[in-house]
Amino acid sequence: MSKIAVLGAGSWGTALAMVLADNHHDVRMWARREDQVMEINEKHTNVKYLPDVDLPHNITAYTNIEPALKESEAILLVVPTKSMRTVMQAVKPYLKDGVPIIHASKGIEPSSSKRVSEVIAEELPAGFSNSIVVLSGPSHAEEVSKRQPTTVTVSSLDMNAAEQTQDLFMNQSFRVYTNADLIGVELGGALKNIIALCAGLTDGLGFGDNAKAALMTRGLAEITRLGIKLGANPLTFSGLSGLGDLIVTCTSVHSRNWRAGNMLGKGKSIDDVLDQMGMVVEGIRTTEAAYLLAQKVDVDMPITSALYEVLFNNKKPDDAVEELMGRVKKHEGEDFSGLLPNQNKEH
Amino acid sequence: MSKIAVLGAGSWGTALAMVLADNHHDVRMWARREDQVMEINEKHTNVKYLPDVDLPHNITAYTNIEPALKESEAILLVVPTKSMRTVMQAVKPYLKDGVPIIHASKGIEPSSSKRVSEVIAEELPAGFSNSIVVLSGPSHAEEVSKRQPTTVTVSSLDMNAAEQTQDLFMNQSFRVYTNADLIGVELGGALKNIIALCAGLTDGLGFGDNAKAALMTRGLAEITRLGIKLGANPLTFSGLSGLGDLIVTCTSVHSRNWRAGNMLGKGKSIDDVLDQMGMVVEGIRTTEAAYLLAQKVDVDMPITSALYEVLFNNKKPDDAVEELMGRVKKHEGEDFSGLLPNQNKEH
Repeated sequence: MSKIAVLGAGSWGTALAMVLADNHHDVRMWARREDQVMEINEKHTNVKYLPDVDLPHNITAYTNIEPALKESEAILLVVPTKSMRTVMQAVKPYLKDGVPIIHASKGIEPSSSKRVSEVIAEELPAGFSNSIVVLSGPSHAEEVSKRQPTTVTVSSLDMNAAEQTQDLFMNQSFRVYTNADLIGVELGGALKNIIALCAGLTDGLGFGDNAKAALMTRGLAEITRLGIKLGANPLTFSGLSGLGDLIVTCTSVHSRNWRAGNMLGKGKSIDDVLDQMGMVVEGIRTTEAAYLLAQKVDVDMPITSALYEVLFNNKKPDDAVEELMGRVKKHEGEDFSGLLPNQNKEH
Repeated sequence: MSKIAVLGAGSWGTALAMVLADNHHDVRMWARREDQVMEINEKHTNVKYLPDVDLPHNITAYTNIEPALKESEAILLVVPTKSMRTVMQAVKPYLKDGVPIIHASKGIEPSSSKRVSEVIAEELPAGFSNSIVVLSGPSHAEEVSKRQPTTVTVSSLDMNAAEQTQDLFMNQSFRVYTNADLIGVELGGALKNIIALCAGLTDGLGFGDNAKAALMTRGLAEITRLGIKLGANPLTFSGLSGLGDLIVTCTSVHSRNWRAGNMLGKGKSIDDVLDQMGMVVEGIRTTEAAYLLAQKVDVDMPITSALYEVLFNNKKPDDAVEELMGRVKKHEGEDFSGLLPNQNKEH
C-alpha cells in the first residue's frame, strides 16, 4: 500500500484514482472546487464527471495541495497540458528522490511544441527527469470507472520508474504494459486527438464508414511520419498508445475530441463548440502545435493542415474534406518514403 | 470504354459493377439465379443484396457465363473463396493475354492455406500469373453503391496490371491506390475478418470500447506477424487494405463477420449463426486456415487461437476472452521480436 497523490479530479483523474484505490492504495485527490471535494469525501461520488459511479472510500479529496502531496510515494498528474507548468510549481517542494511523477495528459504545449514530460522536466531540478512516467492508451474514463477491461501503456526514460508505475496500477481489469519509447507513447496519445477531431468532422458532415476508416488510416500514417522525425519508434504508433487510442477516440461518442469535431461538421462555429463542451478539448491546441512542428521539421501532414485551416482560418469543413479525398497520390508506399531505413523503394 | 465481366452478383460484386458502370464501361454480370438476372436487367435493381439502390442501365446480367465473358477486356471475380477454383475452370476458355483478372475476394483456402491469387494462378496456364490483380480495402458495399467516398488498394505481381485496374475503377468518389505488396494486400483483407469476428464476439459479450480497441490493436499485430513470416511488407498492414479494412469491419454493423461474432457472443451456436446469416462468412474458414498456417510457420497468434477454440472446439466465448485479457506479457515491444531487421531490442 502506497500513499498516492492524484492531482486533477476530472473524469480521467477520478477513474485512475479508483484503479489505485481498488489496489488498496491510500489515494489523496486534489481538486480546486470546494463543493467537489466535499462531494468526494462525503457522498463518495463525482457526478459531474462520472455519473452513476460510487468511489471507493480510500479516496480522500483536498482543496489544498499540501495534504494531497505530503509523504506521497507516487504522484499522478491529470491536469490539462496548459496548466502543467503552474501545477508543477506547486508540486516541486514536495518531491522526493525515487517517487514516480506520472502524467496522463495527452497534449503538446503549443508555444514550445514540447511533450508533457519535457514540460514537467523543465520545471524541476535535473535529477528528476528519470522519475517522469507517462500513462497512455485506449481508455475511456467511463469504462475504467465501471471496471470494464482496459489496457494501457506506461513509459519513461528510466524503465524502473515505468515498472514501478505498472505495479501500482496493474489489476485484473486494468492491464498495464511497459514500452521504452517515451517519445512515441507521448506523441501518439497527443496527436491522435487531431485525427479524432477530423473523424468527428467527417461523421458530422455525413460521410460514411469507408471514408472514416480511410481517414483514420491516412491519419495514423501522418502522425507516425511526424513521430519518426521527432525520434519515436514507428512501431509504437501501431501499439496501444497509438492505434489503440486512435480507434477508441475516433469511434466512440464518449470522446470529447470526436464530439467537438462532430459539432463542427454539423455547422457549429468553433466558439459555439467550446462553449457547449464545457471541458478542455486538447485536440484543438494540439492541431496548432503539430501544424507548426510539421512545418519546422518538414513533414507532410495533409489531414492536420486541413483541420488547421478549418479551426484557425475559417475554411469550410466540406471543402477541406473534399480536397483531402481528391488528392493525387496514387501509390500507397509513398507514406514513409525516406523515413524508414529498410523500406522497399519501389513501392 | 471497356467490356468488363463481373462474376458474382452479391452486394460487393454489384457495388463494384456500379463503379465500373459509372465510369461508362460496358458491364456484364454473371449470376446463378434466373430471377436475379431478370431483376437486374428489367428492374435495374438487386434488392436482396443492395436494397434502395438503382443500378445504372449499362449493367447487363446473364445466367450463362459465356456472354458475360466473351470479348472481355477485364474480368472481375467476386465469388466466395471456396468457389474460386470451379469458377476459374469456367473462365479459362475465354482468357486472353493482357486482360486483367481482378479478384475482390477476402479469404484463404483452408485446405491449402493459399491466397486467392495463388488459387487463381494454379487453375491457369503459367503465363497468366502477371495478369492477376487483387482489389481490397475499407469498403462496405452499401456505401460504395451510394457513391459515398471510398478508397481501395490494388496490387499485382505486375504493376502494369495493377495500374490498368486503377484506371478502370478510379473516379471522384472511388479512389484507387496501387501497392506492390501483393502478399500483404491479400493477407490483410483475409486475416482482418478473424479480428472482426472477435470484435463482434467481445461486443456481444458486453465488453466496452477500451477492450475492443485493445483487441483490434493486438489483432493487427498478430496478423502482421503472420504476414511478415509469409513474405509481406509489414507496412502494408498499416495501410488501407490492412488497418483501414480492419477498422471498417470491426466497427460497423454492416460487416457480416462482425455480425456473426456478435451473435456468437450473445450465446448463439455457430450453426444457428450460419443459418441466420444466409451469406458466406469468410472469417470462419479463414480462422481455420490462419490457425493451421500459424502452427506451420511458428507464429504466436493468441487471438486467432482463442477464436479457433470457440469456433471449432466448443470453448465458451467468455472464457476465451478472459484468458486473452489476462495474458502475462508485460512489454509492448515483444510483438515483433526477431521478425523485423531494425528493431530496437531493448523494448
